[in-house]
Amino acid sequence: MTGIMAESVADTTAEEVDAAVAAAAAAAGPWAAMELADRARILHGIADRLDAHADVLIPLAMRETHLAEPRLVGELQRTSFQLRLFAQTVLDGAFLDVRIDTADAEWPMGAPRPDLRRMNIPLGPVLNFAASNFPFAFSVAGGDTASALAAGCPVIVKANPGHPALSLAVGRLVDEAFAECGAPAGTVGLVFGRDAGVQVLTHPAMAAAAFTGSTAGGRALYDLACRRPVPIPFYGELGSINPVFVTAEAARARSAEIAEGLLTAVSSNAGQVCTKPGLVVVPADSAVLSDLVELIRTRPVPTGEMLNDVIAAGFAAAVEQVRKHPNVQVLAGGGPGEALLLATTARTVLADLNELMHEMFGPATLLASYRDTTELLELARAVDGQLTVTVFGDRADDTTRALLTAAAGAAGRMLWNSWPTGLSVTYAQQHGGPYPATTTPATTSVGTAAIARFLRPVAYQSVPDELLPPELRTDNPLGIPRSVNGARPQ
Amino acid sequence: MTGIMAESVADTTAEEVDAAVAAAAAAAGPWAAMELADRARILHGIADRLDAHADVLIPLAMRETHLAEPRLVGELQRTSFQLRLFAQTVLDGAFLDVRIDTADAEWPMGAPRPDLRRMNIPLGPVLNFAASNFPFAFSVAGGDTASALAAGCPVIVKANPGHPALSLAVGRLVDEAFAECGAPAGTVGLVFGRDAGVQVLTHPAMAAAAFTGSTAGGRALYDLACRRPVPIPFYGELGSINPVFVTAEAARARSAEIAEGLLTAVSSNAGQVCTKPGLVVVPADSAVLSDLVELIRTRPVPTGEMLNDVIAAGFAAAVEQVRKHPNVQVLAGGGPGEALLLATTARTVLADLNELMHEMFGPATLLASYRDTTELLELARAVDGQLTVTVFGDRADDTTRALLTAAAGAAGRMLWNSWPTGLSVTYAQQHGGPYPATTTPATTSVGTAAIARFLRPVAYQSVPDELLPPELRTDNPLGIPRSVNGARPQ
Repeated sequence: MTGIMAESVADTTAEEVDAAVAAAAAAAGPWAAMELADRARILHGIADRLDAHADVLIPLAMRETHLAEPRLVGELQRTSFQLRLFAQTVLDGAFLDVRIDTADAEWPMGAPRPDLRRMNIPLGPVLNFAASNFPFAFSVAGGDTASALAAGCPVIVKANPGHPALSLAVGRLVDEAFAECGAPAGTVGLVFGRDAGVQVLTHPAMAAAAFTGSTAGGRALYDLACRRPVPIPFYGELGSINPVFVTAEAARARSAEIAEGLLTAVSSNAGQVCTKPGLVVVPADSAVLSDLVELIRTRPVPTGEMLNDVIAAGFAAAVEQVRKHPNVQVLAGGGPGEALLLATTARTVLADLNELMHEMFGPATLLASYRDTTELLELARAVDGQLTVTVFGDRADDTTRALLTAAAGAAGRMLWNSWPTGLSVTYAQQHGGPYPATTTPATTSVGTAAIARFLRPVAYQSVPDELLPPELRTDNPLGIPRSVNGARPQ
Repeated sequence: MTGIMAESVADTTAEEVDAAVAAAAAAAGPWAAMELADRARILHGIADRLDAHADVLIPLAMRETHLAEPRLVGELQRTSFQLRLFAQTVLDGAFLDVRIDTADAEWPMGAPRPDLRRMNIPLGPVLNFAASNFPFAFSVAGGDTASALAAGCPVIVKANPGHPALSLAVGRLVDEAFAECGAPAGTVGLVFGRDAGVQVLTHPAMAAAAFTGSTAGGRALYDLACRRPVPIPFYGELGSINPVFVTAEAARARSAEIAEGLLTAVSSNAGQVCTKPGLVVVPADSAVLSDLVELIRTRPVPTGEMLNDVIAAGFAAAVEQVRKHPNVQVLAGGGPGEALLLATTARTVLADLNELMHEMFGPATLLASYRDTTELLELARAVDGQLTVTVFGDRADDTTRALLTAAAGAAGRMLWNSWPTGLSVTYAQQHGGPYPATTTPATTSVGTAAIARFLRPVAYQSVPDELLPPELRTDNPLGIPRSVNGARPQ
């Protein structure tokens, strides 16, 4: 034990927060200076410990979150995989974006070009606000922590109040992995309580923050980050409706299949995922609606319990806002453990975007029927910032192309004939999007590119080899991929 | 003429601003959709026009800015070179950061990996607040405009009040280049006046802003950008002291050479460059100080005139703040057309960082003498966010390494035995740094990496080839470098 990790789930005191931040600040230099191989080894150490303690962690997570065992087993697998993928990213070295300009007396700028060598370095201590809905993958040892550690940054996790005991248990495993490898004490800290989170966020020693949660909460914290005397980047994922557009051809060809996929996407995990489709735009004359009604009657998909009472109350309030609209009806469902399907028209949504483009974080979705392509495209173009936009279609025609163009304008990820839930951790993943989906649409919080959020470049001008970091030395002792004089990295 | 560019240097009216923003918003789609080769051709067209009209532009710039002819000739050359370098960057395509994951049923995350294809797309209309001190390179057709256009974003330039006629003349040349190539009208707009700048910054259609100027002005605009209902990135370069640390060995070996280089760096362009060294830390017993005094007496370097009365008044006030400190003396200079050298001790600076670490935007610098290595390193570690930190040294010893480590923590660029003025436009350049040097230390405003500020990634999941943009199609028709399944880009 390093002595920095919280000892209990009680709210962290102001003095304890100060100690955790001081420890993270003290660890920043040593952690950044550790060899990449050591950094990777520690990420593996955390992953191995998570896997080895699944028998303790899964029951704890089930008790605190009410999520089903198979889902949590899969999430834990995803989380340890994610740590190992970031270890691979660290060893590969491309994330350093090393660029070397050799001195050039003939550089056509009008003045000789000096020797310039540029690489990414860690930003410094990162605050990670853990999320409620993925107690492993977006929590203490989740993606934000993994990517910040991979970048070379210490991390302070503000535990989510929805799974405090699990947070503490995972924190101790992380701590053990650091202690075993002789890594700097205090590289990862854990604090509890809203006040502690704000105190860390506004502490001068912090360099960045990551957040996954509600729009209101995220915006308030974003504002605090911007108003600091020294502002810091706040990578906030705030909320998303994840609209789905179904073309007439797709509805005709596969209405039953689409209905079934939608019901599963809305019901699974009680709809408590950031990519749950919350608005599904279908042709007015299609069978998708009747197929859904039939399906929920004959072959319902159980939703499972909500994460906790706070989330359940927020869901009920969000549903109420949409349902009370005079042109919104209950199509089907809504019974105990059953998804709620609301119905309206595309015209109604267009007339009341603020009221109806509203995230319902739970097992509900709004089906909006359109009469013609004009309405379909008008609604697609009215969509604001989203994590995902999905198109079900059959043909590469003008309507489809217009839908995909609108989707690219609104979202970070667009999908074709598949559902946005189930987010793969990969090299090309993009989990982010224009505001309000995120506060920083140029970044991703999932996938290997997430490491970029916690780096900044520095250039060394005319510094001799013996004073350069190994990544920039002429003989490239670490074998890092580098771009020399603008050429593609080798 | 596209009809969007301002017709006079009078303050742009609110209606004219609305028209310019509407035109930029309308141009965003068509400009983003232009083929990369066409985008590059227009950047060349602007560069060619700047070069061809040097005989008109240089005298205009001399009259409005009081900068010397050779400097302006060099700056114009740098500006057209920069446009052509961004054209090359566009054609190369690496800036798109294309990543492709092929579908993989065995992906060890616990679920099959879908086909995911990710690339950068333009953010949307960009506001560029032009700077006073580089009427070509950081103004209407300067680096921010060039990099935003290269990224595929329309640009609205808020003209700097210090060179309005030149701004208008350059704006017309830009306009001609667009018109000739049949590019969308309104892709580049030009507005005059502080109110117009604020109106554009807070307009819902704008997607990002770039700024080079004072800390107070930049912070106020940054705050506006963050407080928008939909916040946008604000890439602000706000001010820098650019400290220089001279080790005892370097001072002993080359005091006259260092004194001469410093006097040139402080005097050139009347010290009105963002990388002018404003704090020079030298050994107390060295000859650097006496050499400077001797030099300024026998072989002074003329500073030339200040850009304008506003800049001159700001410089006088900043100098006064430093000079009035009881432990600061005038070492030499300060006469008409002569640099001002102030002197104090490292101890004094450490005791009064807020008062003495203060940018004097003009031909002045503060020399701080240290008695021992402890004081030297203490001051190096106390430095806050800077564009550059410079070390003059002779040996790869512990002191030098500690200085470079402190420099990397504080600055975006560090230099060894050379002066930070004279900023090369290259592939590996980094012109940025921790706050208050910039509001976004992870970005650069100079060099080819500046294009990244105006892009965001999107991922296409399971989208068939015929519906993908050409950059992401399996047969790679444009020959863009791409990373497939995590491998190095080919």
